[in-house]
Amino acid sequence: MPDPNRHAFEPALRRGLYEAIFRRRDIREFVSTPVAEEVLARVLTAAHHAASVGFTQPWDFIIVRDLERRWRVREIFEAERNKNAASFSDARREKFLSLKLEGILEAPLNLIVTCTPDRFGPGVLGKSSIDEVEIYSACLAVGNLWLAARAEGLGVGWVSILRNDALREVFSIPAHVIPIAYLCIGYVKEFPERPVLETLEWAERLPPRSLLHFDSWEGDGARGDALKAAIDDSSIWNGIIATGQRRTS
Amino acid sequence: MPDPNRHAFEPALRRGLYEAIFRRRDIREFVSTPVAEEVLARVLTAAHHAASVGFTQPWDFIIVRDLERRWRVREIFEAERNKNAASFSDARREKFLSLKLEGILEAPLNLIVTCTPDRFGPGVLGKSSIDEVEIYSACLAVGNLWLAARAEGLGVGWVSILRNDALREVFSIPAHVIPIAYLCIGYVKEFPERPVLETLEWAERLPPRSLLHFDSWEGDGARGDALKAAIDDSSIWNGIIATGQRRTS
Repeated sequence: MPDPNRHAFEPALRRGLYEAIFRRRDIREFVSTPVAEEVLARVLTAAHHAASVGFTQPWDFIIVRDLERRWRVREIFEAERNKNAASFSDARREKFLSLKLEGILEAPLNLIVTCTPDRFGPGVLGKSSIDEVEIYSACLAVGNLWLAARAEGLGVGWVSILRNDALREVFSIPAHVIPIAYLCIGYVKEFPERPVLETLEWAERLPPRSLLHFDSWEGDGARGDALKAAIDDSSIWNGIIATGQRRTS
Repeated sequence: MPDPNRHAFEPALRRGLYEAIFRRRDIREFVSTPVAEEVLARVLTAAHHAASVGFTQPWDFIIVRDLERRWRVREIFEAERNKNAASFSDARREKFLSLKLEGILEAPLNLIVTCTPDRFGPGVLGKSSIDEVEIYSACLAVGNLWLAARAEGLGVGWVSILRNDALREVFSIPAHVIPIAYLCIGYVKEFPERPVLETLEWAERLPPRSLLHFDSWEGDGARGDALKAAIDDSSIWNGIIATGQRRTS
């Protein structure tokens, strides 16, 4: 049998993917430099090549430059931010309210990724009891978009402190279409080395070995030892990506 | 102001990312060659570095090798496949039933990605009215995993024709944890040039320009002409990726 490993990319190409993954950040500070159409076209093409259940490609992309609508989104955000703040204890609420969580008006463009379930009719290959499968596909499109943007030097921030009914109203989105991601996109002064919420000690990166289970949720016996050792071993990245570029924390 | 473009990756690194995106496939035919722990460790680390709302990292990974449990999953799949089949008209149902849609038993490993909402308590930064945000994050982890697997030469197939309550029972997953993706993973004889469902004429790749909207759902006036022209122009990939590697259809 031919070596199955022959389909692996050469190390330099794997490095490109891994750098995009490890250096991607959720961005809330933008510079106003416009995004070239050709760059945006590549990023959107990457999004459109995400996996989708039954090849349904349930996503659409609304490119938003109009400032009046962005002001309205900003207002929705402000109201929802207060609602979100109320879910925290006093000390944490104060910290929360000090954070800059969006770049709706500063970013040169905003972009909405939507999901249209049953786009080609009620029968969807891959959709039986799990009704959310097309939503999952739309999320994969967001993921591709985010990584491609990083490789193109573009920052992306996902603003989830919003209300879908309000977004439908502002952008005339039909009732059966689900807004999945409201994104701010633009160039940045810098990509922080670590996630901002980690630097600010809002939350910590979980040790990856703590997330592994073997054969069942409670199964973490000796079966997993070799994988846990490998995931903690920085030498698995030798020849692929320099340690400095790989932020495990 | 410094050139904001300075954060863009050099073309060879961008190529690595775009090749992973364009050459990724949903795989249902595997060879039995075991997956090295070091390769699996890299793929899982990539998944763990996905974006997550409020840096919650809501995912867990159940690595499944146990054959008895996989037989049970296969049985759940068979029942759900019949349910899925019933949603199609006669001709389409026949085609559907002829498709191989999973590699649960042949693949050297299966892997479940789950989502634990409110992992650190009820207050989640970024979660106000949109309750599914952590599920979206778990999907991004699946996306990273899938791309990293492709770069490592590993095929991944997402089996969505399942039932979450049944998966919870087989793998002792707690009631508050949501199974998001049931994946079959392994080396392959080949990565098809096109998505299998496209080759079999189950569905067609949508023209990307048809998915673009400008400033509102109904907005597709002249504002979008430059972007639509760019997205149709193969020269935007010059110097980044060879035409043969980029499957727009």
